[in-house]
Amino acid sequence: MPHTRSVADIGERALIERIRARIPLPPSWVIVGIGDDGAVIEPERNLLEVITTDALVEGVHFDRAFCGPADIGHKALAVNLSDLAAMGAAPRAALLSLMLPADLAVADVDSLLDGMLALAERSRISLVGGNISRSPGPLSVDVTVTGSVHRRRILTRGGARAGDEIYVTGTIGGAAAGLRALQHAALQSAHDTNALPLGQGNARARGANAEMEPLAEGIRRYLRPEPRLRFGMLLGRNRAARACIDLSDGLADGVRQIAQASGVGAVIDAHALPIQPKRAKMFEAISEAIGGGEDYELLFTVSPKLRGRLNGVRRLVKDLAITKIGRVTANRAVVLDMDGRIEELPSGFEHF
Amino acid sequence: MPHTRSVADIGERALIERIRARIPLPPSWVIVGIGDDGAVIEPERNLLEVITTDALVEGVHFDRAFCGPADIGHKALAVNLSDLAAMGAAPRAALLSLMLPADLAVADVDSLLDGMLALAERSRISLVGGNISRSPGPLSVDVTVTGSVHRRRILTRGGARAGDEIYVTGTIGGAAAGLRALQHAALQSAHDTNALPLGQGNARARGANAEMEPLAEGIRRYLRPEPRLRFGMLLGRNRAARACIDLSDGLADGVRQIAQASGVGAVIDAHALPIQPKRAKMFEAISEAIGGGEDYELLFTVSPKLRGRLNGVRRLVKDLAITKIGRVTANRAVVLDMDGRIEELPSGFEHF
Repeated sequence: MPHTRSVADIGERALIERIRARIPLPPSWVIVGIGDDGAVIEPERNLLEVITTDALVEGVHFDRAFCGPADIGHKALAVNLSDLAAMGAAPRAALLSLMLPADLAVADVDSLLDGMLALAERSRISLVGGNISRSPGPLSVDVTVTGSVHRRRILTRGGARAGDEIYVTGTIGGAAAGLRALQHAALQSAHDTNALPLGQGNARARGANAEMEPLAEGIRRYLRPEPRLRFGMLLGRNRAARACIDLSDGLADGVRQIAQASGVGAVIDAHALPIQPKRAKMFEAISEAIGGGEDYELLFTVSPKLRGRLNGVRRLVKDLAITKIGRVTANRAVVLDMDGRIEELPSGFEHF
Repeated sequence: MPHTRSVADIGERALIERIRARIPLPPSWVIVGIGDDGAVIEPERNLLEVITTDALVEGVHFDRAFCGPADIGHKALAVNLSDLAAMGAAPRAALLSLMLPADLAVADVDSLLDGMLALAERSRISLVGGNISRSPGPLSVDVTVTGSVHRRRILTRGGARAGDEIYVTGTIGGAAAGLRALQHAALQSAHDTNALPLGQGNARARGANAEMEPLAEGIRRYLRPEPRLRFGMLLGRNRAARACIDLSDGLADGVRQIAQASGVGAVIDAHALPIQPKRAKMFEAISEAIGGGEDYELLFTVSPKLRGRLNGVRRLVKDLAITKIGRVTANRAVVLDMDGRIEELPSGFEHF
């Protein structure tokens, strides 16, 4: 086998240069970009800044046996953009902090950057700086993003009121089903080879499910989630939602977080949930869909009086399903309504 | 031995609540603080924003055998503040991304936060958000900070011109000597016990060197570096420096980075270097002081015509030594002058 160049072979400075070479010309508001002690950016006049950070850690958030480096790069940025979407903010600047095992191939770092930068370009966010460190353990990708939002258009978790309707974008459950399929495929592949090189496992697991359409879609959603940036911004701009959160940790967790932050309760209608893929066993499907995380859809509440504003937003995003799944209640219980049988909503997903 | 509560025992949400409870009331420019999808802050009118990130990874940047959790918390913020100092920026907001081994004691997370928040309060920076993840490997602490700076007062690496004088704050070499002493003490302790609990090794190693004054100072500098925030801001405000960098990776690296970014060279006078502690073998002392990182002093260049501005700054920071150590040259070589013997400046320190 020919020697593959690892990150330890070329070192920190050369890696920074490789990243710098991949980045498009920054916009004019980037005063100092990559390569100094810090980046210097010009804030947007009269707007507030949203700032958030989220990390993907190997063995906790991804498995290199079936997540390729480009998937990891895409997702590390996507989960952060999803937080901006949930606040109604427009993406602006990103910082990338990489913790790299010494034996990681340089080509994998290139692919990781390619996956991240493709999403960055589509989302109009500029990579302005970061940090590279060696890791004696897992590959970790920690991203920080900033966004801009008008003071009166911020979406938070705390604005829900009793009587609000609860909505969710797109479908839920797909990422959890996709992950299950990938884990199954990786397990089968392990019978042939003990170690799958980074990137190949991914292609293989994908191939194993290529003919199963809903699952293939779930796998795509798990590996390459698409943050609902445009929808979040439209919700904020039209002041259509009272509270909003992204479903990084599952629907059950999202509902609870909004309820807790707003001091309210919620009733979720089990049959209204837009679950994909459909499964024969309804109860299993529901519990996977509401317990499993990583769908990165938006969950939000709307005052029935302001439903007209939501309909206005709907007309602008015709290809995206918007489903009413329940309502906000004054009593603080968070429950699931299954044909009149009321149960406590199962617990959410904690990465710990 | 009584059971020590670990982070896995209490989980992510409880940890976030513990952090939130430790944080003082945020300033009025924090519109949304910890606990939503992102923090929302109001930028300072007419100022630019500096944003930078730096991570401390166990086994790469620190050893829990002799770095206590409060030291780690302090240092993770300090290395970022040092970057703000090097840009001439005033600290503003910080985000904390923690990657925690499941068996880490909750009390250690508390101490880590206490160490970080004590420095944050003194430095007037507000912790506004972050992320907590499990780590299947090392404890990693990734911090992102923002700062404010006036457009015409930014310090960068790229402004040095031939003829400039090169200065350094404080003393250099202390942190490298401190690290060596700590490693030595930890090695000796290892003869008694195989595993030093987090925090105790630190106290022990400190105790072992308590009577050796310059070394104790080096250990303090290694464990608890003090970013030169006030000096950096004064340099920027008085427009006294043409280029500036912090010495995270050693003096040799700092000189090279400024030279490269500015397209110039430099001559460093070996005898002028403010090395602490003094050592019998001059050559060893110089090579440790300029090769070893982590002093977190500022290195900067000053036009001889504007020396008056630097003297003005000096009068404001009487307790801080400011030493002229060389000059910027038009030819791009970066050299050390030892009594007229000219040598290439040794390579800097890479964390990889």
